[in-house]
Amino acid sequence: MIEQIVKQKSTQHELDSIDTSAPFDQEGQSKRLQQLQDHSSSHYLSDNGKIDDLTILKGKIENFIGFTKVPTGIAGPLLVNGTHAQGQFSIPLATTEGALVASYSRGCKAASLSGGITSICMTESVQRSPLFKFSSIVEVGMFLAWIIEQYDQFITITKSHTSHGKLINFKTNVEGNQVNLVFEFETGDAAGQNMVTFCTAGICEYILENSPVKPTTWYIESNFSGDKKSNYQSFQSVRGKKVVAEVIIPKDIVRDVLKSDPKLMEDYWKTSTVSLVQIGSIGTQGHIANGLTALFMATGQDVACISEAQVAVNRFEVTPDGDLYASLTMPNLIVGTVGGGTGLPTQRECLELMDCYGTGKAKKFAEICCALALAGELSIAAAIASGHFVSAHKSLGRS
Amino acid sequence: MIEQIVKQKSTQHELDSIDTSAPFDQEGQSKRLQQLQDHSSSHYLSDNGKIDDLTILKGKIENFIGFTKVPTGIAGPLLVNGTHAQGQFSIPLATTEGALVASYSRGCKAASLSGGITSICMTESVQRSPLFKFSSIVEVGMFLAWIIEQYDQFITITKSHTSHGKLINFKTNVEGNQVNLVFEFETGDAAGQNMVTFCTAGICEYILENSPVKPTTWYIESNFSGDKKSNYQSFQSVRGKKVVAEVIIPKDIVRDVLKSDPKLMEDYWKTSTVSLVQIGSIGTQGHIANGLTALFMATGQDVACISEAQVAVNRFEVTPDGDLYASLTMPNLIVGTVGGGTGLPTQRECLELMDCYGTGKAKKFAEICCALALAGELSIAAAIASGHFVSAHKSLGRS
Amino acid sequence: MIEQIVKQKSTQHELDSIDTSAPFDQEGQSKRLQQLQDHSSSHYLSDNGKIDDLTILKGKIENFIGFTKVPTGIAGPLLVNGTHAQGQFSIPLATTEGALVASYSRGCKAASLSGGITSICMTESVQRSPLFKFSSIVEVGMFLAWIIEQYDQFITITKSHTSHGKLINFKTNVEGNQVNLVFEFETGDAAGQNMVTFCTAGICEYILENSPVKPTTWYIESNFSGDKKSNYQSFQSVRGKKVVAEVIIPKDIVRDVLKSDPKLMEDYWKTSTVSLVQIGSIGTQGHIANGLTALFMATGQDVACISEAQVAVNRFEVTPDGDLYASLTMPNLIVGTVGGGTGLPTQRECLELMDCYGTGKAKKFAEICCALALAGELSIAAAIASGHFVSAHKSLGRS
Amino acid sequence: MIEQIVKQKSTQHELDSIDTSAPFDQEGQSKRLQQLQDHSSSHYLSDNGKIDDLTILKGKIENFIGFTKVPTGIAGPLLVNGTHAQGQFSIPLATTEGALVASYSRGCKAASLSGGITSICMTESVQRSPLFKFSSIVEVGMFLAWIIEQYDQFITITKSHTSHGKLINFKTNVEGNQVNLVFEFETGDAAGQNMVTFCTAGICEYILENSPVKPTTWYIESNFSGDKKSNYQSFQSVRGKKVVAEVIIPKDIVRDVLKSDPKLMEDYWKTSTVSLVQIGSIGTQGHIANGLTALFMATGQDVACISEAQVAVNRFEVTPDGDLYASLTMPNLIVGTVGGGTGLPTQRECLELMDCYGTGKAKKFAEICCALALAGELSIAAAIASGHFVSAHKSLGRS
Repeated sequence: MIEQIVKQKSTQHELDSIDTSAPFDQEGQSKRLQQLQDHSSSHYLSDNGKIDDLTILKGKIENFIGFTKVPTGIAGPLLVNGTHAQGQFSIPLATTEGALVASYSRGCKAASLSGGITSICMTESVQRSPLFKFSSIVEVGMFLAWIIEQYDQFITITKSHTSHGKLINFKTNVEGNQVNLVFEFETGDAAGQNMVTFCTAGICEYILENSPVKPTTWYIESNFSGDKKSNYQSFQSVRGKKVVAEVIIPKDIVRDVLKSDPKLMEDYWKTSTVSLVQIGSIGTQGHIANGLTALFMATGQDVACISEAQVAVNRFEVTPDGDLYASLTMPNLIVGTVGGGTGLPTQRECLELMDCYGTGKAKKFAEICCALALAGELSIAAAIASGHFVSAHKSLGRS
Repeated sequence: MIEQIVKQKSTQHELDSIDTSAPFDQEGQSKRLQQLQDHSSSHYLSDNGKIDDLTILKGKIENFIGFTKVPTGIAGPLLVNGTHAQGQFSIPLATTEGALVASYSRGCKAASLSGGITSICMTESVQRSPLFKFSSIVEVGMFLAWIIEQYDQFITITKSHTSHGKLINFKTNVEGNQVNLVFEFETGDAAGQNMVTFCTAGICEYILENSPVKPTTWYIESNFSGDKKSNYQSFQSVRGKKVVAEVIIPKDIVRDVLKSDPKLMEDYWKTSTVSLVQIGSIGTQGHIANGLTALFMATGQDVACISEAQVAVNRFEVTPDGDLYASLTMPNLIVGTVGGGTGLPTQRECLELMDCYGTGKAKKFAEICCALALAGELSIAAAIASGHFVSAHKSLGRS
Repeated sequence: MIEQIVKQKSTQHELDSIDTSAPFDQEGQSKRLQQLQDHSSSHYLSDNGKIDDLTILKGKIENFIGFTKVPTGIAGPLLVNGTHAQGQFSIPLATTEGALVASYSRGCKAASLSGGITSICMTESVQRSPLFKFSSIVEVGMFLAWIIEQYDQFITITKSHTSHGKLINFKTNVEGNQVNLVFEFETGDAAGQNMVTFCTAGICEYILENSPVKPTTWYIESNFSGDKKSNYQSFQSVRGKKVVAEVIIPKDIVRDVLKSDPKLMEDYWKTSTVSLVQIGSIGTQGHIANGLTALFMATGQDVACISEAQVAVNRFEVTPDGDLYASLTMPNLIVGTVGGGTGLPTQRECLELMDCYGTGKAKKFAEICCALALAGELSIAAAIASGHFVSAHKSLGRS
Repeated sequence: MIEQIVKQKSTQHELDSIDTSAPFDQEGQSKRLQQLQDHSSSHYLSDNGKIDDLTILKGKIENFIGFTKVPTGIAGPLLVNGTHAQGQFSIPLATTEGALVASYSRGCKAASLSGGITSICMTESVQRSPLFKFSSIVEVGMFLAWIIEQYDQFITITKSHTSHGKLINFKTNVEGNQVNLVFEFETGDAAGQNMVTFCTAGICEYILENSPVKPTTWYIESNFSGDKKSNYQSFQSVRGKKVVAEVIIPKDIVRDVLKSDPKLMEDYWKTSTVSLVQIGSIGTQGHIANGLTALFMATGQDVACISEAQVAVNRFEVTPDGDLYASLTMPNLIVGTVGGGTGLPTQRECLELMDCYGTGKAKKFAEICCALALAGELSIAAAIASGHFVSAHKSLGRS
């Protein structure tokens, strides 16, 4: 698959462009939708089609009263060289924050003109962490001696609950007379949170029936999985997908598109990193929550997972040639292209814009997420390093 | 204002109820909208009205292509005893996650039957943190000696940039030859991120012109403000609003509504807290990102701020009478009721449902946010402590 | 080995006691040394023997000018039920802080009267983490594909460098174009920091010679190992030894020895834990650095490792019978009983007091360390929960 | 005071040097002690004088059995340009780790040849944090309204308990129905932990007697002060003293003394910092715990405070001239030059070596601590960046 990246990068790309005129009136909207029509319908997105069939809402909502309508713009195109995402992508962002789409688009342009962003989905894992409590550490010891022999059983139980998911690892953590069990699953193209819950429930039933030593209490989840919480354990391992992206922006593109300079941007990164260390941020980044939240909303992801997805590490360096090396490492990207809100009318249209709807697309989508986030990091760092952050918000962020 | 809470709590409340039948078809939708019609129109929410006037999008989006439509349900009613929020509230939640609205509603019911949630907005502050770098620590010392005398000037400059915002504090942090300045503002009823940027830019201009010692570099923001990042500094101080909420749920309501027991819930909280300590979570909570994200989406908040808003501290204890004391402390709640996406058609309708649209409503809305989040904590903790978390997701989370 | 604990616990113990009279004069000193004389000589400790043979200092110090003399007292005896430490131990503590030895001794008494502390060394691992940097993520991918096949080679290389140490695990972490390698070793009875450095250096030589893709830079250590730094990664895995200890103190011993009450102590623990969460402490504990530092100093450990060893999790709970359950989990206990300062004259005498000098004793010593730390947690929590913390320091902490 | 630094830096210094021959035999020891004899006696350090008068141990130890003897070497001389520490200092380090003294001495040499380390004690504060718990948040509100008016009373009470300490700040933190109070003191030249305890106890008595609303529970310390725990709150404020140090090492001294290159060292710092971010270290540094622990042991500090003192931020950068800028910021340096173990025989001799014994010396000593730590950072970073870390430990770290 790495060979594909190399081949892809050597191909000449004629870059598309998005019509940025009339940023928020019908005429501009129509032009842009026409440009995108080869990729996806926009029947629901364009607000022309009322959503009549509400049976699609089963399992998605209760006490339904209607639809919140969030303005959606298009960023890009962004050239991505991934193991799954290859080519140019126009990326839909649902937001109400002025300057956001424009800023990310600027980063996309700089990256695409530079040959695109390499973005690779390295590993994946979704956890569920039940806890078992015993009357003493000695009983914990006996429980551990038994449970480490049961891994094959757990795999069998998982198979009986899901055809998409797969148990790939099993870990234990002892604290006093309590044991956290960590079950790690691959979840196919779904975000997979319900899937891992049901499989883990099956495994726990087996444990309760068969363990030679009985717990005094147990919980299906002790909050040890890190679900929807910024935390160091998820940051240091993988939750959802771990994607790593990088790009080298030649110094003239830094100057002409980003209006900055590689040395200025590295200097800013160093200062930013030291500041982030001092405030006790988990990870280092500028504003990836902005672009990710907008992309998650547009595509029917579980937006609450921004809590963990925004934990990442950015890095900017001047290369020996004086160009700008930039990378972004995202270990906690929980996304799916089936299930959740992905099949709802506008959300599906948005995913289809990037050919990311349905089975076999989750890793591709994850690579696009990380590439987009890196594009956004380039743009904001350039703006702050070179002093035009304020003026951009003055011109684009006022109504 | 505390007197108002006491008075409010002593009043008998006849609790409204939301029709939960037909959770996602037109008939149920109609019934619920009718119940809510005294509070707000639902012209756009109900998807009957296409949004025709796109001029409302100025300053909110670029490269507009349409609207993402997110299913929205209603949780509650939730009885809140705040200094600003007083009475029952039906709370709109935009989500695609099954069981979310139902779970929060269950928590609302238990809390309301118990006399409601006390929720108090304690303090507020939004930061912007420019950084100035000097050639040596000795120059830093000279800069500090000058700048601590300029606070009155900074207040004057702020006044010239905004009539809504107010500079309320100014701090410095030295690291080697770098100085982070922290400007803290009250931002009225707006989330205020642009406001604090523009005021700080004005202050920095003054510093650059007048400082007796010149920086070698400076940045309008060094990422020291914590904007859109889970971090310990914001957690330990205030970012946006700090709201504290509590409720005592009598043991019979714990049993009848939450299907659990105060002792079981305290036990679960202890185990959960120790687990969260071990994974290095910032703060302790179960799933407040779920409800907050849904409420932020429905009401036009900057949803990316979930990164910081979900950092909180929950606590469950058995009272001497055997009832359940539950509290939630949220120090990083960035919300607004003017500006941002609050004035867009469906977002405004959702805010009006709670009488939270426009000036004078931000603290009220913040108190509702924290009360809702606490209701959600009650529900999930009861579900996990008593073993019905899995079955709830099986019945409500499948399409 | 767990069987041994069960057997040991069922045995009746006649507890020794330490003469606490004349806490710091020659007469008291003599009595105590006499009590301990079966266990160890005190030739050097008693300050009667000047250290004449300075060749023992080779590899321990440079620019030698003399010996710092640190007052040393004896805590205990502490009854320990471990897999390696079994029986009563009198524990030497080198400190200049009044009340420290007395406070730990009080905890030891309560625990020993209750049947002793169960303390189990669960796992062990010392890490060294070189970093390799490449020109692109694609090259990182090729490097990873190669290196995961080399584990057997690394084991072989390790064997050629040490007969005591053993490579037990190997992990990788990718960040942009950089890869941290984590080599995990068992180090026998030595703390092992030099051993793991030399073995890793050997492995790195092999990598540099044989890797199909060459790094642009590499470092023997990128600070990813966590050596001498409080950090979440070490906390969440194991650095040195992971030891878990617990004890149940009957309510009457809580009352008579600790002058407190199980419910008061659980209440204090809850409040303390919530406070520690809010200040962003890594782990939760009261003052284990106090006892550990004193024990490390007395026994020739690498005292700078307190940085990581003090990261732990304590827990206090009232049992169904109304007694006090207390546990302490220490995942980062770097200690040794050979090498480092363990063979120096007074340090060796102190280790011998506990029969912990030399080979085969490191796990035993680690279990004593954790048991002592738990005893100290009992004592301070009781003092604060019941309001006699201040008076203890007034009577013992003034000269 | 900053003027003094400027004057001091312009003065030519003839650097002393320490005889490094015969690193650990009597002859080398004698030569070095002779070099140092103008500064201090070495009667007890040299092990010639038995400590006979044990009354000095009152308030320092219980159950005394003797003295632990820790080998002590001398690092430096180190040229320091501080507001309180000015001139060359030979620094005693008590350790059993080979290579430590040599490594720190190398850093001292490079820094001193470069004109010395600027080291400035910026602020100081020692905290004690009692907690008060109420029956509801409403009562918390009433308590806060009362207590913010009592600051002058608290100052008066403090004065009645101590002539050395001073209450300089008072903060509150609300979590549910609990309030942490933070009292911040200046403690003169003592580390001050007992002093702040006794003053706070006096303040709490006043609160309990006078508060219009009575707490249900209170504790003199809820572990919110951060005492002896690595934590973000102390890191982000000040605990003990905050000292900032910097030096510019010309590139030829980097090459000749440190055997490295400014660009290599900056590159290593960047990689190290990114690694430390990923493991969740509080702060960034290489091995400052090593030097600090050795200096704390030699000088009778509370060595357990290494837990917090080792939390710091280092930074290396290539200057526009191609030299190396290096800084170290230490916000949690709890040290004293009176009280604690400072007056014990060898500890006092060690403090006197640096003219740091007694009143008026604590800030001076703190500036030396930070300067020493920075010297150590230079040495280890150079060793790792240039690949001679392993060989140094092979030649100096084996017995």
